[in-house]
Amino acid sequence: MSSSSAAPAAKPPIRDALVAAAFRLFLERGYEQTTVDDIVALAGVGRRSFFRYFPSKEDVVFPDHERCLADMTAFLAAGGAEHEPVRRVCDAARLVLRMYAENPAFSVQRYRLTRRVPGLRAYELSVVWRYERALAEYLRARFAGRPDGTLRADVIAAAVVAAHNNALRSWLRSEGKGDPGAAVDHALGYVQKTYGRPAQAPPAPAARAGRPDDVVVLVSRRDAPLWRVVQELETALGRA
Amino acid sequence: MSSSSAAPAAKPPIRDALVAAAFRLFLERGYEQTTVDDIVALAGVGRRSFFRYFPSKEDVVFPDHERCLADMTAFLAAGGAEHEPVRRVCDAARLVLRMYAENPAFSVQRYRLTRRVPGLRAYELSVVWRYERALAEYLRARFAGRPDGTLRADVIAAAVVAAHNNALRSWLRSEGKGDPGAAVDHALGYVQKTYGRPAQAPPAPAARAGRPDDVVVLVSRRDAPLWRVVQELETALGRA
Repeated sequence: MSSSSAAPAAKPPIRDALVAAAFRLFLERGYEQTTVDDIVALAGVGRRSFFRYFPSKEDVVFPDHERCLADMTAFLAAGGAEHEPVRRVCDAARLVLRMYAENPAFSVQRYRLTRRVPGLRAYELSVVWRYERALAEYLRARFAGRPDGTLRADVIAAAVVAAHNNALRSWLRSEGKGDPGAAVDHALGYVQKTYGRPAQAPPAPAARAGRPDDVVVLVSRRDAPLWRVVQELETALGRA
Repeated sequence: MSSSSAAPAAKPPIRDALVAAAFRLFLERGYEQTTVDDIVALAGVGRRSFFRYFPSKEDVVFPDHERCLADMTAFLAAGGAEHEPVRRVCDAARLVLRMYAENPAFSVQRYRLTRRVPGLRAYELSVVWRYERALAEYLRARFAGRPDGTLRADVIAAAVVAAHNNALRSWLRSEGKGDPGAAVDHALGYVQKTYGRPAQAPPAPAARAGRPDDVVVLVSRRDAPLWRVVQELETALGRA
């Protein structure tokens, strides 16, 4: 995401030092028992430096979400009409996963902290909400003028976030072991299969020119349940 | 929901008086500028009475969510294996709609207030999250042992909440005019169509005893796209 103008070229060392000091104290003393004064004392900087980087103590727990939200917005804005919309929001969600996967130990620590502190849980929900709105706004624009455009946009954005978080949280609960990418791909694949256009076009007739008259005859009772007929049909067509 | 033991037989008048006083002050002075002392003074009760009904000033803004959450949990717990799971969570979501629709003027006031006060927005997100978790936990239990059971449960719960809120918020933005029930039914219908089993069971063979040998013959090219074949099939079966 180096193309995003919102992303700094490198993280300032003071910012990193503040995050490291804060997390050390949160884990040692507890989040509520740690003050901003404690954090700046341990980091060896002044109180003003803290507030230059973080509006509040809560923000130091989620130091990369603002950058990630900016990256996501830029990524979505850079998409054109040639991008299948559901695939695009799934790819946008993968930016969040990448942020978590960049630093597994930190992500797992934060996950544990967030479980324990209700204020941080609320903060996290508001961050998740902002990601979801960014995806929904993109989809609303792509679906503009279509029937139920905003409804579909909101539902698909929520489904993408839920699928992403289902896989992400499994990984965090497993102490960040293994590659979360495959699990997130699988989860997002479920959403894409449900709502997206097929990734691959069906083979052109020319590709099957060898058997142009290949037909399937299916005989079914009229009162058979539709799902059962489709099942038979898939088997007959060799696509089950 | 009169069957729920969590629902009180009647709202205590003091509780209603506190809510009415709080909203009058929130609208006149602003939420942040109103203290609990202001609210109890206007309602003519003591400070302790306030905290007997509401843990904090934020809670007075959402006085019915705890009851509604309890109703929803009881409703889901009362469901049996005969209830189609996606339909059941959609019906559970309708309990929330009913709470909003019971008092349109109050719901619209609160909606406006929640837009303006970030703390209330965060509170609302945490309430929405609890509804979503209640639906997801129910679906996780119903899908237990199935492939991707927790993934499907989480995604469907999120889709139900997003669809419900899409319709609810349109109604709130329209100043609570008209019946929100039809819009919510339409939105939830979209989710049920996507994830649920068909609402109506196929007619029993006995009901069609007059034409027991009624069959359909469908002939299709093997390389026809599946969606096209299903479309033809639906037409042939008279279910399109």
